[in-house]
Amino acid sequence: MNTNIRIKLPVVCFTWQIAMIILFGVFVRYDSESDAHWPETMIQNNITSNTENDFYYRYPSFQDVHVMIFVGFGFLMTFLKRYSFSAVGFNFLIASFGIQWALLMQGWFGSLDPSTGKILIGVENLINADFCVAGCLIAFGAVLGKVSPVQLLVMTLFGVTLFAVEEYIILELLHVKDAGGSMVIHAFGGYYGLTISRVLYRPRIHQSKHLQGSVYQSDVFAMIGTLFLWMFWPSFNSAIAYHGDGQHRAVINTYLCLAASVLTTVAISSLSQKTGKLDMVHIQNSTLAGGVALGTAAEFMVSPYGALIVGFLCGILSTMGYIFISPFLEKNLKIHDTCGIHNLHAMPGLIGGIVGAITAATANELDYGKQGLINTFGLTGKLQSRSPSTQGGYQAAGICVALAFGIVGGAIVGGILRLPIWGDPADENCYDDEVYWEVPEEDEENPDSIPPILEYNNHMIHKQQEM
Amino acid sequence: MNTNIRIKLPVVCFTWQIAMIILFGVFVRYDSESDAHWPETMIQNNITSNTENDFYYRYPSFQDVHVMIFVGFGFLMTFLKRYSFSAVGFNFLIASFGIQWALLMQGWFGSLDPSTGKILIGVENLINADFCVAGCLIAFGAVLGKVSPVQLLVMTLFGVTLFAVEEYIILELLHVKDAGGSMVIHAFGGYYGLTISRVLYRPRIHQSKHLQGSVYQSDVFAMIGTLFLWMFWPSFNSAIAYHGDGQHRAVINTYLCLAASVLTTVAISSLSQKTGKLDMVHIQNSTLAGGVALGTAAEFMVSPYGALIVGFLCGILSTMGYIFISPFLEKNLKIHDTCGIHNLHAMPGLIGGIVGAITAATANELDYGKQGLINTFGLTGKLQSRSPSTQGGYQAAGICVALAFGIVGGAIVGGILRLPIWGDPADENCYDDEVYWEVPEEDEENPDSIPPILEYNNHMIHKQQEM
Amino acid sequence: MNTNIRIKLPVVCFTWQIAMIILFGVFVRYDSESDAHWPETMIQNNITSNTENDFYYRYPSFQDVHVMIFVGFGFLMTFLKRYSFSAVGFNFLIASFGIQWALLMQGWFGSLDPSTGKILIGVENLINADFCVAGCLIAFGAVLGKVSPVQLLVMTLFGVTLFAVEEYIILELLHVKDAGGSMVIHAFGGYYGLTISRVLYRPRIHQSKHLQGSVYQSDVFAMIGTLFLWMFWPSFNSAIAYHGDGQHRAVINTYLCLAASVLTTVAISSLSQKTGKLDMVHIQNSTLAGGVALGTAAEFMVSPYGALIVGFLCGILSTMGYIFISPFLEKNLKIHDTCGIHNLHAMPGLIGGIVGAITAATANELDYGKQGLINTFGLTGKLQSRSPSTQGGYQAAGICVALAFGIVGGAIVGGILRLPIWGDPADENCYDDEVYWEVPEEDEENPDSIPPILEYNNHMIHKQQEM
Repeated sequence: MNTNIRIKLPVVCFTWQIAMIILFGVFVRYDSESDAHWPETMIQNNITSNTENDFYYRYPSFQDVHVMIFVGFGFLMTFLKRYSFSAVGFNFLIASFGIQWALLMQGWFGSLDPSTGKILIGVENLINADFCVAGCLIAFGAVLGKVSPVQLLVMTLFGVTLFAVEEYIILELLHVKDAGGSMVIHAFGGYYGLTISRVLYRPRIHQSKHLQGSVYQSDVFAMIGTLFLWMFWPSFNSAIAYHGDGQHRAVINTYLCLAASVLTTVAISSLSQKTGKLDMVHIQNSTLAGGVALGTAAEFMVSPYGALIVGFLCGILSTMGYIFISPFLEKNLKIHDTCGIHNLHAMPGLIGGIVGAITAATANELDYGKQGLINTFGLTGKLQSRSPSTQGGYQAAGICVALAFGIVGGAIVGGILRLPIWGDPADENCYDDEVYWEVPEEDEENPDSIPPILEYNNHMIHKQQEM
Repeated sequence: MNTNIRIKLPVVCFTWQIAMIILFGVFVRYDSESDAHWPETMIQNNITSNTENDFYYRYPSFQDVHVMIFVGFGFLMTFLKRYSFSAVGFNFLIASFGIQWALLMQGWFGSLDPSTGKILIGVENLINADFCVAGCLIAFGAVLGKVSPVQLLVMTLFGVTLFAVEEYIILELLHVKDAGGSMVIHAFGGYYGLTISRVLYRPRIHQSKHLQGSVYQSDVFAMIGTLFLWMFWPSFNSAIAYHGDGQHRAVINTYLCLAASVLTTVAISSLSQKTGKLDMVHIQNSTLAGGVALGTAAEFMVSPYGALIVGFLCGILSTMGYIFISPFLEKNLKIHDTCGIHNLHAMPGLIGGIVGAITAATANELDYGKQGLINTFGLTGKLQSRSPSTQGGYQAAGICVALAFGIVGGAIVGGILRLPIWGDPADENCYDDEVYWEVPEEDEENPDSIPPILEYNNHMIHKQQEM
Repeated sequence: MNTNIRIKLPVVCFTWQIAMIILFGVFVRYDSESDAHWPETMIQNNITSNTENDFYYRYPSFQDVHVMIFVGFGFLMTFLKRYSFSAVGFNFLIASFGIQWALLMQGWFGSLDPSTGKILIGVENLINADFCVAGCLIAFGAVLGKVSPVQLLVMTLFGVTLFAVEEYIILELLHVKDAGGSMVIHAFGGYYGLTISRVLYRPRIHQSKHLQGSVYQSDVFAMIGTLFLWMFWPSFNSAIAYHGDGQHRAVINTYLCLAASVLTTVAISSLSQKTGKLDMVHIQNSTLAGGVALGTAAEFMVSPYGALIVGFLCGILSTMGYIFISPFLEKNLKIHDTCGIHNLHAMPGLIGGIVGAITAATANELDYGKQGLINTFGLTGKLQSRSPSTQGGYQAAGICVALAFGIVGGAIVGGILRLPIWGDPADENCYDDEVYWEVPEEDEENPDSIPPILEYNNHMIHKQQEM
């Protein structure tokens, strides 16, 4: 296999970045809250305080989400013994590309100013771009170690495109609520990645088996990713929720749900081993399943114990997924899932969609109040006659749309990625940073301690052989 | 010793999580600011902007505190060479359990709605739950490496319970101010942990001596914990302070106090070695002592130079604690304190209580203004006649309550933990992740570089022996 | 060389910390928003909500900046194989000292209350102190591994002093805008450090060549620094921007600019190697250049595509700097730049100044609105007649002032640092933590796996030698 990407990677990066500049030049402008005309907007709309600028409602959550995308996802994938550079570095690359393309795609579908044909962006668009990229980073987890950075960029280009269309259908056309993206982000991203991994299946991947595991330090690095994802997930699920009680409630629900996930993950992980030892893979991943599964319903009145129940179940199911489902998928369906995104994103995403549909269908004025019901589900204008149970039906339809986009889109993109032009690694070079990175030589690590002895021994042995 | 926890750990996790779900179902609901009826509440209370929702005052601080609890405490304890999985992982487990139980305990004592018998929770309750758990994580530091995860869960269950009662007595009954928890969190948690460690004293712990130290990488990992604690401590001390100037002032004071601690820690650490070399243990821990010691007084008008003085002294005392007091405690009182929590939490917590009592007793209308004095000390209703010097007396009483709860509670819980049913490690297996974790095999780390030489040498030597 | 700092370092730390306490006692008080008299201030100024306290506008950004200073800069410099303790630890020390001195120096020049002679501090002062220290930490990068902690403290003392004067001239006297500090922080700090490095040039530094590189783990640690700098740079550039649209716009611009930098950095890095492999040095550093280069113009109406163009160019130039300029500087100008701060800070800082001057000169009422133009450039009072093109001229003058202060100041301070009294390391001991830190012994790392074999071999060989 030719893994020389010296021309391919720079050409793709430059072409795309120049395209971004041109398209942003044509289409993208500041929205009214980030434009220097804001003081005039304040007077026109009788806004008396800068605190009403959406920036102050959303910026702290945005920064938390930003950390999840770059440190959370990036470090979570550093668990492999010799693939940490790629995990963090490629995550960085594709997220940086993806957010630009997402601003355009989501802008065309969602925030195009009809009078000027311009996309007007503010802090909420930045959050949505980060969300969109999350879908592609999830998909990255399924193919981690088995593709080239050029393939990842192609995957991201199509992934963001599909995401924006899917999101438009689900959120705008069907008017489904999915603030934390159980369906739109996690189910879509999960099945998109799994389908691509299926299409790119390598029957001889066992040739890299010696690199497909962790070492002590890499597992600790991965916990940095886990914890930042876990801690900031309340921000993720509340970042674009309704101002006030919506954001507030989404945080409480996610906080509780994640806490419950940790306990049941530990329980099942311990149960799964003969002597009750814990498995780092479970702790790194399944503890997060609750956050995924509350993505849709976080802003609803699920009540605190409802959030705990969701977390309780998802910790169990996700950990069992690592024990039973992942081996099954690999053996029987030829789906090799490096990070186990099926257990962390795809399956909990579906659960999240279902939880959302049920809680939406059972919503009522007693629990929400008249105005609360309208605000939470956005049932204004021509939607004001939609009943909660109808909303529940639409929510369920949203799950299907996300699934369909993930699987069909993944199959097509997987086909494109099979073309022998992308510089992907040979079966025996998977999970190895050496293929795409200048890696410092390890034998220089402790020049003072180990190597001298080794060299000395070596030298002695050669001398002895000569004797 | 039987360290098989395959039944114990899952049973405890499941039982407790199910109990949490039931108790939350019976008791816990959203408060008015996180309930969907908030739009109606706004109208009733003539609130014109969502920015007045407590969420926007407190959420950024909450997230910082959350990082301190999970990354700060977790990584600070990764310094041991082979106990990083346990440090981060058990910290994650007991904090996740503890915050749920804390919401209940603190709710019953503090925010029970008398008309409905429900606990109403909002963002401030989440912060308080994180605070409560901090006490237990401090105690964890004293016994790090010497107990099983089951023991840690038991310790946390009782720790949270004791904390909630102690907090109720200090903050509600005595009406003592302690926004950053010098007494309530640090002194209590410190002495609770130290007493438990005393009761669990292992005379033959030296059998694990080879694992009771750091390696280069583990010290760097621990600095992640140190820095996130240090950076976000201003948020910790201000998170539940009075809106406006209270939060603002608590941040400034803590920021200054911590900066001073760093300089004196470095000075004493350098002085303590023959050639002036710095000791990572001091830098990792004593630099934080200023934050602890300003926990009570952070929101008071201690003035910027007052904050510097507190930090100056605490850096010195805490570092000297590592040099002189810890060895003394171990040798003479049989208190083995793995992380040195006496120097970082217990002693600075007492200092913090004293600083708080003095600054409260000397508060006056000139410095605070009439309304400022009332706001800062909450002297309204039937407390409006309490003078600053009386308040100072109550503050001093608070120290005693925290101490008493820590020591008496620790003795009782330590007794419970001595029962031979908890799966704790043998003396020679302390500080070793292998006991409770599936640890990746190290000899596979660099399959291409070191092992071949080693194997080759080994092989040669065997051949030579045969000769 | 005598690297014993047992007296020097403690004396310097104690002297300075005591000086700080005295000076703070004389000069520093809380400002009106952090003083307990705030409730009265609210009434006097007809402020109806605590949300108007500047704390709530600025605190989330402050905490992000704080993370950049301590974790960002600290971990970015951990890339060397045996200098991680020093990177993180000395960064911690000099930042903690620097912020105190900065509050005083910036206070005397900027926020002295004329009636009382007191410096009144609030959250904005804390941000500015962090900014000021950033300049010194940049300079640290140039001399990393080649100086003693005492020299670093001296460098910081003078660096902060020079910074405060330079900042006063640029921001106050010339009324130049530089919210993210392209000129004031990055160009100044960069040239200050490079000039010092020139003066301290060591012709025999190659004697430490074996330590002047990274190992696998240290490169991953450095990515923690890179990512936290990258993610929070939007907060850096917006932290002291104008409330409302100013902060909002600065975030959007910086976010976009940084994303573009990543793509062009990857492209050039890949192009620079025969087989297209990526170089961690480039990814760790040049991806950040866009943030530096938008420091001045982030709050201006550069428009989203303008931000992308700046990032595009800076990613290219910065990476090329590592490939071509750094070797040139070392070989021809005898400027050895350990971290490559010329490519990450100095040069992008100059570019940022130029971008700022051009965008200021072309500002107009059509783009900004009448009030927007006044707010963005602060053209009130006696400046109300200053035209945008005049402002552009002043902006250009600001670049020259920053450069002059950096180079002249660096030359003088470099001369002071050459005195043979500071305990700096010998040429063969550079980049080595052992000189100033108690470093844990490495051969104890894996007591169960490698050492026994090594010891066994060693033992065998000795026996064989005896034969």
